[in-house]
Amino acid sequence: MVESAARNLVCRNCGTPVPLRPQHACFECFGPLEVGYDTEALARVTRAEIEAGPHNIWRYAPLLPVGQDPATRVTLDPGMTPLVRADALADAIGLRAPLWVKDDSANPTHSFKDRVVSTALTAARGFGFTRFACASTGNLANSVAAHAARAGVPSMVFIPYDLEAGKVLTTAVYGGDVVAIEGSYDDVNRLCSELTETDEFEKTAFVNVNLRPFYAEGSKTLGYEVAEQLGWRLPAQVVIPMASGELLTKVDKAFAELVEIGLVPASDYRVFGAQSRGCNPIATALWNDSEDIVPVKPTGIAKSLNIGDPAAGRYALESVRRTGGWMEDADDEEIREGIQLLAATTGIFAETAGGVTVAVLRKLIASGRLDPDAETVLYSTGEGLKTLDAVEGRVGPTHRIKPSLRAAREAGLVE
Amino acid sequence: MVESAARNLVCRNCGTPVPLRPQHACFECFGPLEVGYDTEALARVTRAEIEAGPHNIWRYAPLLPVGQDPATRVTLDPGMTPLVRADALADAIGLRAPLWVKDDSANPTHSFKDRVVSTALTAARGFGFTRFACASTGNLANSVAAHAARAGVPSMVFIPYDLEAGKVLTTAVYGGDVVAIEGSYDDVNRLCSELTETDEFEKTAFVNVNLRPFYAEGSKTLGYEVAEQLGWRLPAQVVIPMASGELLTKVDKAFAELVEIGLVPASDYRVFGAQSRGCNPIATALWNDSEDIVPVKPTGIAKSLNIGDPAAGRYALESVRRTGGWMEDADDEEIREGIQLLAATTGIFAETAGGVTVAVLRKLIASGRLDPDAETVLYSTGEGLKTLDAVEGRVGPTHRIKPSLRAAREAGLVE
Repeated sequence: MVESAARNLVCRNCGTPVPLRPQHACFECFGPLEVGYDTEALARVTRAEIEAGPHNIWRYAPLLPVGQDPATRVTLDPGMTPLVRADALADAIGLRAPLWVKDDSANPTHSFKDRVVSTALTAARGFGFTRFACASTGNLANSVAAHAARAGVPSMVFIPYDLEAGKVLTTAVYGGDVVAIEGSYDDVNRLCSELTETDEFEKTAFVNVNLRPFYAEGSKTLGYEVAEQLGWRLPAQVVIPMASGELLTKVDKAFAELVEIGLVPASDYRVFGAQSRGCNPIATALWNDSEDIVPVKPTGIAKSLNIGDPAAGRYALESVRRTGGWMEDADDEEIREGIQLLAATTGIFAETAGGVTVAVLRKLIASGRLDPDAETVLYSTGEGLKTLDAVEGRVGPTHRIKPSLRAAREAGLVE
Repeated sequence: MVESAARNLVCRNCGTPVPLRPQHACFECFGPLEVGYDTEALARVTRAEIEAGPHNIWRYAPLLPVGQDPATRVTLDPGMTPLVRADALADAIGLRAPLWVKDDSANPTHSFKDRVVSTALTAARGFGFTRFACASTGNLANSVAAHAARAGVPSMVFIPYDLEAGKVLTTAVYGGDVVAIEGSYDDVNRLCSELTETDEFEKTAFVNVNLRPFYAEGSKTLGYEVAEQLGWRLPAQVVIPMASGELLTKVDKAFAELVEIGLVPASDYRVFGAQSRGCNPIATALWNDSEDIVPVKPTGIAKSLNIGDPAAGRYALESVRRTGGWMEDADDEEIREGIQLLAATTGIFAETAGGVTVAVLRKLIASGRLDPDAETVLYSTGEGLKTLDAVEGRVGPTHRIKPSLRAAREAGLVE
């Protein structure tokens, strides 16, 4: 077992270091903490070491803060999801260079959240927490409840009361507590922050609150995998859906790390962010050339992206500005069209967040913000089966007939 | 590129050989055809060759009739799904030996059907078919439509009109034709057989009708993978859901092949079959010590298993009798309990067929038919998100509160 190269937590705002512990905000400036590494230790990691690892996120354990010893992992072993070449989609939207879809619906609970839950809960068990929890827009609740069931640990997940039925049932079936909150995700998140301060929740790990630095690191694997699957190189452009904005920043961090430690050659890449029209505070700040992200009250069908007060928004802005990318949004109609276009051209049925990302990619090409002649990776982070409402009434049987050749003839299937 | 070791089609009934072509019934006796291999060619396949292959079913291409050349594959690259150790489930149902769940919801369209569709459509393209089709209880339709979308080939799938909404939407979203038939799956199947004889469908590959021998071979990969994942050995007992009965026979065939060609040591194994109470014609024949499978009119919630006239039923009986296994059935209430038990103990959310299989395993242990001290593999072939109705009303939020600490206190979450 190799030791973790993680050395401390570092404030993303003021740079103050903190020991590795379940803490998410800087005591100096209340800025968010993230994991810092011993770069020399990271630089000793080789491609061969990674390639010899398991076919899941833990092949990157040398680059993660936890899970170096397999026995310590609390995990469904997510990751190494398909990177699908999407020529027909590229043709449809006017991209002339290779287009790839990173399809994270292939994870055990069918969203990218399995990655971050695996790293957060592995950290949580190491810190001695005895209950697993989260504030969730749905996918995270699915994943925490499933991880807890497999690990045999009690769970309590907090969700907005108006989530898609599929996401609620798919969480509750694992048998843990499911607390529906009569409010928005942002209300849920605030309540969870308060609960972490109570005695009753002292031993409860909220993966995206008190374990947040360890949680966020799991998203780096979505950057590592794309680079490895492309043959250890970076794509020129990536388009990533944004809720808190964290995923986008961590893919950027992963790419930068891979270059820094010599696992991929240095090359320019541009990071693009996708939001829904009903919840676009990060994109709005970019368009307004502002540093200030003004919280919004989310609306619209892309519920998994409906975080009106995005915790990592300013860092997402920084990534997009630094790399020369851009952000766009998509309305509900465009989201539905995006889901159908992706399905019809690639065989991938994505949830609403995937529809957002496809619609935004199309707009970025149309506006010239994204280079139609540069290789592009689109991140699809969840499963269409969880948001069936988005296509209900739009698609369905094309014919309905009685079971006879005569009926087939009358319907025009045969002459 | 290695050539296929497949040499012909052979009648399972009378043994008559037929050249490799799109034909499913023997012209001599109307018995079903299956693929025959050059055993000497198979025997040259090595573990190392397989292990060096891709992390999907195509690592077993040397043991399949098609797909040796990657460029010929029509596929979503399914397979190498998790084999999950299920100690808590074993405890709950009284199994004292290791229990494993083969979780095939991890496939691209979240059921084992991606395996058989990949082999069938790869064969279909080789034979020059220009449209892809199937008769389906739902999962197969999802898979054919998705494969067709990715391959850029038109599709027309035939389903019973009363399928779960999730399975209909998840098929129609890919943009192909979806024909809802006002009848049972068996009616759908009969109509598709008739359609293959019409001029309009001459160039249409019905994966489970005229391509059936090539389709069925894809199921062997569920046997190969379990053996490889166990470290190249066979489990003592397997429990497998039955619709047509084909999957069970092909896992048996795969195990026998692995022994015959020397890839695993010979060891006794017993094959157990699981049906639902609403559609149990194969199990009934076993219980009655009969060779005759009397077709039934299926009822009950396990729609993916609702084939009342199972094409491979007599061969499933043969496998179970020859290996000393048994069959049981489960009613709707037991199915629902099985889904919840599997979810709560393993973090795997299965569709109704998985609930059937868990409930049947429990009964087999209770009755002593299955050895509680022998290692067992349970096949879970589909995804719970597709049959949410099965748990609707049984699970849901455990609490509903306003977003305040005070409300959390009143609900008893904190004091």
